[in-house]
Amino acid sequence: MTAAQTTTLGPDSDLSQIFELAQQLRVDSVRASTAAGSGHPTSSLSAADLMAVLMTRHLRYDWDAPDNPAGDHLVFSKGHASPLLYAMFKAAGVVSDDTLMTTYRRFGHRLQGHPTPVLPWVDVATGSLGQGIGYGVGIALAGRDLDKQPYRVWVLCGDSEMAEGSVWEALDKAGHYRLANFTAVVDVNRLGQCGPTELEWDTGTYARRIEAFGCRAIVIDGHDLQAIDQALTTAADGQAPTVVVARTVKGRGVAEVADKEGWHGKALPEDMADRAVVELGGVRNLHVRGPQPPAVTPAPIPAAGPIELPRFEVGGKVATRVAFGHALAALGARPDVVALDAEVGNSTHAQDFEKAHPERYFQTYIAEQQMIADAVGMAVRGYRPYATTFAAFLTRAHDFIRMAAVSQITMALCGTHSGVEIGADGPSQMGLEDLAMMRAVHGSTVLYPSDATSAAALTAAMAELDGISYLRTTRGPYPVLYDGDETFPVGGSKTLRHSPHDRVTLIGAGVTLHECLAAAEHLAAEDVPARVIDLYSLKPVDAGALAQAAQETGALVVVEDHHPEGGIGEAVLSALAATGSHPAFSHLAVTDLPGSGTTDELLDAAGISHPHIARAARALLGS
Amino acid sequence: MTAAQTTTLGPDSDLSQIFELAQQLRVDSVRASTAAGSGHPTSSLSAADLMAVLMTRHLRYDWDAPDNPAGDHLVFSKGHASPLLYAMFKAAGVVSDDTLMTTYRRFGHRLQGHPTPVLPWVDVATGSLGQGIGYGVGIALAGRDLDKQPYRVWVLCGDSEMAEGSVWEALDKAGHYRLANFTAVVDVNRLGQCGPTELEWDTGTYARRIEAFGCRAIVIDGHDLQAIDQALTTAADGQAPTVVVARTVKGRGVAEVADKEGWHGKALPEDMADRAVVELGGVRNLHVRGPQPPAVTPAPIPAAGPIELPRFEVGGKVATRVAFGHALAALGARPDVVALDAEVGNSTHAQDFEKAHPERYFQTYIAEQQMIADAVGMAVRGYRPYATTFAAFLTRAHDFIRMAAVSQITMALCGTHSGVEIGADGPSQMGLEDLAMMRAVHGSTVLYPSDATSAAALTAAMAELDGISYLRTTRGPYPVLYDGDETFPVGGSKTLRHSPHDRVTLIGAGVTLHECLAAAEHLAAEDVPARVIDLYSLKPVDAGALAQAAQETGALVVVEDHHPEGGIGEAVLSALAATGSHPAFSHLAVTDLPGSGTTDELLDAAGISHPHIARAARALLGS
Repeated sequence: MTAAQTTTLGPDSDLSQIFELAQQLRVDSVRASTAAGSGHPTSSLSAADLMAVLMTRHLRYDWDAPDNPAGDHLVFSKGHASPLLYAMFKAAGVVSDDTLMTTYRRFGHRLQGHPTPVLPWVDVATGSLGQGIGYGVGIALAGRDLDKQPYRVWVLCGDSEMAEGSVWEALDKAGHYRLANFTAVVDVNRLGQCGPTELEWDTGTYARRIEAFGCRAIVIDGHDLQAIDQALTTAADGQAPTVVVARTVKGRGVAEVADKEGWHGKALPEDMADRAVVELGGVRNLHVRGPQPPAVTPAPIPAAGPIELPRFEVGGKVATRVAFGHALAALGARPDVVALDAEVGNSTHAQDFEKAHPERYFQTYIAEQQMIADAVGMAVRGYRPYATTFAAFLTRAHDFIRMAAVSQITMALCGTHSGVEIGADGPSQMGLEDLAMMRAVHGSTVLYPSDATSAAALTAAMAELDGISYLRTTRGPYPVLYDGDETFPVGGSKTLRHSPHDRVTLIGAGVTLHECLAAAEHLAAEDVPARVIDLYSLKPVDAGALAQAAQETGALVVVEDHHPEGGIGEAVLSALAATGSHPAFSHLAVTDLPGSGTTDELLDAAGISHPHIARAARALLGS
Repeated sequence: MTAAQTTTLGPDSDLSQIFELAQQLRVDSVRASTAAGSGHPTSSLSAADLMAVLMTRHLRYDWDAPDNPAGDHLVFSKGHASPLLYAMFKAAGVVSDDTLMTTYRRFGHRLQGHPTPVLPWVDVATGSLGQGIGYGVGIALAGRDLDKQPYRVWVLCGDSEMAEGSVWEALDKAGHYRLANFTAVVDVNRLGQCGPTELEWDTGTYARRIEAFGCRAIVIDGHDLQAIDQALTTAADGQAPTVVVARTVKGRGVAEVADKEGWHGKALPEDMADRAVVELGGVRNLHVRGPQPPAVTPAPIPAAGPIELPRFEVGGKVATRVAFGHALAALGARPDVVALDAEVGNSTHAQDFEKAHPERYFQTYIAEQQMIADAVGMAVRGYRPYATTFAAFLTRAHDFIRMAAVSQITMALCGTHSGVEIGADGPSQMGLEDLAMMRAVHGSTVLYPSDATSAAALTAAMAELDGISYLRTTRGPYPVLYDGDETFPVGGSKTLRHSPHDRVTLIGAGVTLHECLAAAEHLAAEDVPARVIDLYSLKPVDAGALAQAAQETGALVVVEDHHPEGGIGEAVLSALAATGSHPAFSHLAVTDLPGSGTTDELLDAAGISHPHIARAARALLGS
């Protein structure tokens, strides 16, 4: 196999040239996956015609300047078709044939098994199916309503992933917001991983669903280059969000695998690959220079106004969710801060932002996965999203949050109504797993303020952090503990009570800190001086203060309104282990399934109220 | 307000009597929530007519025998309308007016803020929106394909929750499986928590979406009793899965709140409640005895065949996912065991069950939320579901798993392809958060076998556990460590190497156990005898063996193919803390974002390979 001479294709290339490009993408998909010994060539072959037309005539993109703000965005929701994407990179001239053949799926290289943003032409990591359309909607929303950029967003999806509910959350939003800059192309190749897909080639049903969800559907033969060209032209007419439903053949172009079961996710053995390359017309060296982004005069970036965080009077009772809302509204003075709500903004107080900055407030309704997808899309465009719902309901978006970490996205999440503290609404509404979930997210920061002053300060601190940060807030009002001039560095803590004679340290955050303070009063009355630490930063955690408390007091009681696993207690234990500290230790957390009741009843029933804390301290001290 | 004399309604009652019942449900919804001081009366008022007709003429249910296998199932997906549900319980005569007025939302009582199965008439906990339709589909599937019972499933949904993608995953399955025993009733009251819903009263769009997803849609005025009756009659005709789209008014019947914003989730103040009760015609005392379940001759329960677990030769290389598949197929000899797949059964090896027991294998395609919802529905009917996908993709269903715990469901989950061990596919496919997620689930059991023998034994053990159990398996083949006669009690561990002179203990599970064994060999060659513990049970964990190892060797190295938070390391630390053990401690886990590569490259890059383990041991020993 020798490479032919280089020919450059562009928007004016005719369809016969584009056919050659499609064959090249197929050949390179086969070669790259066979060279790697794994990958998804057949899933790449089905979409090669679609992508050949797109990149030659429709994708307005400067491959040498992926950060051009006017450039289109391409999201491979079917991330397993990475051989095709990387073959496109070769055709675009940004990845060499040698790199494709020798580094795909190899350790230490960028051409990973599924695309991630370690590649400058990739906005978001994919590979967990059903997410790309959501991200595309978020990027399109940012382009139209925030950036005011002329870019279009193109998403390539598989047909199997159309079974994910998240796809319909996303298309619903594309329709609802009338995102005419959004196009998805569904590669209906009929075969999933295990066999035929649910709808196989029933493109009519796909189209009816898409239309019912408010998008324009265009059904085509996904191997008819002219039909593809017409569909993409229509999609780009600026009239409506569009989904091109393309009937295709998995393994198209390679007779030995075309439309055959048992070839999902398998590289062709070398002899088959050789035959396939011959059948596809051999190795080519076509280059593509497609349409360029329109020249735009960059809009002046609005200056950030002064951020005046709310101040609260020490001793007054204010819920941390209220302080979060005030602070978020104040942060809106930064033009890059946006807020997203899943239709609970009046409970979470995210709505305070809407009142101050309605143009940067996005209502996703009760669709937490799409709320995170929108946030990711906006973060791709450089915004700093704050997405908020009840802590319990962030679990709905766990996979999106996990993938956002793989995408190395920076965004702030706030979960309100944490723990049994919420009272009468009962266990379905109590976030009792959120700390474990958010601590285990790669590169996350986890914050849990106990009073309004620290909640406001930490809300603001999140705007300076990289990666995914999480703020846990509480439903009820509790005393303000700190003066407005107090600072709350991420990774720090506050020691609220201490003396040289402390015999035990009580550690809490959120509602349990207030219980710790009450317990310390009781213990003081019994001549048991207790240190109290406000552990407002759980990741990173203030290992130094914890080690010091362990050394000086010898006994620690950690109390949390969360299940025992993965939360404050284990964060403290990890910190103590890392510092070689070995205090006597007691851990109070929610172990039984709670019901309804008042806050006090539920805290007490869970064994995390101040009498239980005092008792645990006494037990540690053997008194 | 005095109660009128008791009148009993039944299927032959005329619509004017049913109207009185609907008004009673409204009155009691208002009274109960006002007495509690919180709750969602307006969301109850909109659906009162729908439920009055349903319970009088269509719901074939013996309130005194909720376990009757032929009885219909009613799921309140809009769980916040609990005042209405509990008012129905009063009308059914199973809850007294006094109980309703004095215990709703109170501590220690069953009438919680959102319904849970602590009530015998409640199958599943709701309150996280968008889940009830999925559960209903699961129960309907069990009734038709497993139970062979004539029951119907009725689900009451809100309109806000139709924005959740999970609703469309579920309706897609209702249509795909042609579940003619399934009916959802959508209470389109136009107002959500924060204001108008996305579609408001656009019932036509709801209907188009429902039809496109394969269900029959019937649009009615949800306050027209005759229309409701006709719609429910049609729904029960056994022809098709049906969704009744009922246009309603939030707060219907109470002029001060009807169709008004700002009244979501608010109990009426007492004076308003008094006026509302008068407007609604006062307190009534109607009882309902609706249609009874058909008499069925119970089908003989098939006898369980002998379960012959696979046996593996010690030293042979077998992946734990393969052993899981073999064991699951063998467990199918129990007629209550069912398996669910999210279209990765050939990778997870759940497909082995399909080959052996196709009639109890359910393909949910790539829809993990619905896979769990189906499992929950089958568990409601007494089956023992095993639901399997990649560990990473179980995060997609986190909220469903969380709610299943609130429902006190018993089911087994298996997550395959855990950790960086998977190799070239990259981080999107690596479960690195699943242990944290599953440990923090209320009442869960978390198991992580290292070899085929223990994987098979633990797969079988899950069939005897209560609550949600989780088995983590590994992609690649590793040596079989145990003879088939070995037992693996849940909460136990295996000490694979030990001597009286052990200076350090290496603790792993899954792939890292094999790395620990290799590290122990290296250390032994350096005259550093190392104990090795296979920690196959993470929750509960073998605190005794860990404490003994801590005491006898003084130093522990814990190694896991998972992020550092919430996994094996913190499970060990919690156990050590609980036993007052204070060994020197080193924790190796995946801290950086991995890419593609071979297993060995990725284990080494993550710092969890045997050279790193040996180095950590030496560092602990200061050598």
